[in-house]
Amino acid sequence: MNGVERYERSRSLFERAAKVIPGGIYGSKAPGFLVPGAYPYYIESTKGCRMRDADGNEYIDYLCGYGSQIVGYGNERVDGPALERASRGDLLDQPAPVMVDLAERLVASVEGSSWAVFMKNGTDSTTLAYSLARVRTEKPMAIMAAGAYHGAANWCGANPFAALASDREGVLSFRYNDLGGLERLFAENRGRIACLFLTPYHHPTFKPQELPDPALYETARRLCDAEGALLVMDDIRGNFRLHSRGSHVRFGAKPDLWCMGKALANGYPISALLGAEGTRATANSFFITGTYWMSAVPMVAAMATMDEMERLGGVPRLESLGLLLKEGLESAGRESGFGARISGPPAIPFLTFDEDPDLYLNQRFGAAMARRGVFLHPHHNWFISLAHGEDDIAETVSRAREAFAAMRAGRE
Amino acid sequence: MNGVERYERSRSLFERAAKVIPGGIYGSKAPGFLVPGAYPYYIESTKGCRMRDADGNEYIDYLCGYGSQIVGYGNERVDGPALERASRGDLLDQPAPVMVDLAERLVASVEGSSWAVFMKNGTDSTTLAYSLARVRTEKPMAIMAAGAYHGAANWCGANPFAALASDREGVLSFRYNDLGGLERLFAENRGRIACLFLTPYHHPTFKPQELPDPALYETARRLCDAEGALLVMDDIRGNFRLHSRGSHVRFGAKPDLWCMGKALANGYPISALLGAEGTRATANSFFITGTYWMSAVPMVAAMATMDEMERLGGVPRLESLGLLLKEGLESAGRESGFGARISGPPAIPFLTFDEDPDLYLNQRFGAAMARRGVFLHPHHNWFISLAHGEDDIAETVSRAREAFAAMRAGRE
Repeated sequence: MNGVERYERSRSLFERAAKVIPGGIYGSKAPGFLVPGAYPYYIESTKGCRMRDADGNEYIDYLCGYGSQIVGYGNERVDGPALERASRGDLLDQPAPVMVDLAERLVASVEGSSWAVFMKNGTDSTTLAYSLARVRTEKPMAIMAAGAYHGAANWCGANPFAALASDREGVLSFRYNDLGGLERLFAENRGRIACLFLTPYHHPTFKPQELPDPALYETARRLCDAEGALLVMDDIRGNFRLHSRGSHVRFGAKPDLWCMGKALANGYPISALLGAEGTRATANSFFITGTYWMSAVPMVAAMATMDEMERLGGVPRLESLGLLLKEGLESAGRESGFGARISGPPAIPFLTFDEDPDLYLNQRFGAAMARRGVFLHPHHNWFISLAHGEDDIAETVSRAREAFAAMRAGRE
Repeated sequence: MNGVERYERSRSLFERAAKVIPGGIYGSKAPGFLVPGAYPYYIESTKGCRMRDADGNEYIDYLCGYGSQIVGYGNERVDGPALERASRGDLLDQPAPVMVDLAERLVASVEGSSWAVFMKNGTDSTTLAYSLARVRTEKPMAIMAAGAYHGAANWCGANPFAALASDREGVLSFRYNDLGGLERLFAENRGRIACLFLTPYHHPTFKPQELPDPALYETARRLCDAEGALLVMDDIRGNFRLHSRGSHVRFGAKPDLWCMGKALANGYPISALLGAEGTRATANSFFITGTYWMSAVPMVAAMATMDEMERLGGVPRLESLGLLLKEGLESAGRESGFGARISGPPAIPFLTFDEDPDLYLNQRFGAAMARRGVFLHPHHNWFISLAHGEDDIAETVSRAREAFAAMRAGRE
């Protein structure tokens, strides 16, 4: 079956969409971010770690709603309490009592934090962190790693797409893990740095993932302290997949602010900003508001997701599944003579080919796997969920073995 | 029963919250935006136009989740399809087919629009409108009416709260309905204006609402055309309560961009930006993205909300209910010698006292009504929903008659 037939309904939906939606599908879900024609554009249904596209094709899913699914699509222990809350109201005139429970629980869980606020988008959280740091320090600039993603707002320098140059004047960047470069950036901009943004480890789009240099966080803390700048841990993508008490604990970091989201409520829309005690007064002075920010259902879902994470084995379980996948895929690649390598922490893997930094092989492999019923993003890191099982990993590795062999034989 | 007893659980929740959440409750739901001690701080459940607070007190609700409830809390014809969609997945790796249906339907409904994108917050929509206008025109400034609310982002000049002064340098403001002033602002900033933001009518916080001067929109269009600036209709608060084809139709406005949200999906989290054909190419060039922006459940809810609006009588029904409320409350006020006056369009009323522009009487009246089981915001406009009935309005007016009499007698 060729690509046109396999994704016929996706294509016909997309043709309609292109008339009334910019790009047909915009942003990170645009077909061009996958391999156009070789992936489904529309998804119809999901359950556990499986999904079915608009044409009825089935997949084992390793994108997990861009990381948001951590205990599995349609998890009844999350959806049950969420639906019960929904039946009594979601968006209310004032918060529901669960807001207090969730704030208490997060502050107790995330090591070093003493307050929490809830929002919708991850970008709401990083933007508030940036604003709060600027108001707290009365200094204008943020430092970020080049290629790091901290949201789609204009102020985030990482977005390489259309916006006015003047929108990005608040951001300086350094090469990830270049400690000397970071030190120089602080020295050259003394008195102007409000904050340093870091993701727990580096996960640039289109590139292998990179773990932090063992001295990165000690250096970051020291430079921030000397400058009076805040250290912001953007844990939105890593959320709960690296450490149950916050990804910073895994790497020994001591942030002032934490951005959380995605897996926080297993796909229900909520993000959070947490802060250390020293930032509380500044946070108190802010007008933080959004129509949907105190909706009750995602808060109930967040509580239930944390329970379910624990029940299903949490980070250790995610890591053992991730290691199985890593070993299986790398070995399957070697069998066909490919230098396929998985980078990053086991629960958030990404595959690249040592022999092809330009990702053409990624695209061929991704397309071959999509055709075989496994959804692996060719340009963005993947995610393991607690709904994946050893059998799903084994099936994935078996499909990969076929795909690598077909690529080697020039049939993919 | 005194205030402490009536709201005991609200208070005790708030005491816990104050330890782990900045301000305990932040933003527009902060107790200080109501009358501290005289309103519930936490809501437990809702149905139709009624709600029950954390202490079990019941209310007829006229805030409607800050306008988001338009066909009533827990409306089964909205929640039914939404829950069915939820059972098959909400946040997916790619959009669900309903995204195409919703874009087609909105573009067909909103007069003058030719494309739509979906986001979460109202502020996402106004911020994208501002960015798009700046990129389209290559000019930096937005004009807004003083006191108008276009979101909680730093760039919106309307937010009077903490942010760096430099964050607001992109906004100029004029006195609403001062057509000469608006003309001068354009003249003095020729070549620098990217866009003019207007809400369909003026609904400043803490003040009576004001309908547009009959010449406002013709003037606005002419000035924008001469400057090459875009006219942005921020219809988030008015959404579907003024006209079924967009609030601009009611007032004869011809915008280039439309911001929608709140009532769009009866409280399910979604916002939208719509654009006229002339803005399509610029929209195509943007990277528009957010983890939850293509979630399917709110899109299904939006479709169902539009159906249900129509079935229940739409804007004419909302207006007849609103007029009943206006006549009833104004007449009840007069009976006790108060100049209580309802301003704004009938479906989005707000009460102020002619004899007290400082709103002390508003606060006394709001507190007296809260005690009597009617939730009327003392500082922010109200909303009628299609779940309100003549009997609810009659009960409200009857409680108001008691409240005004008690105020006149010095007992409130």
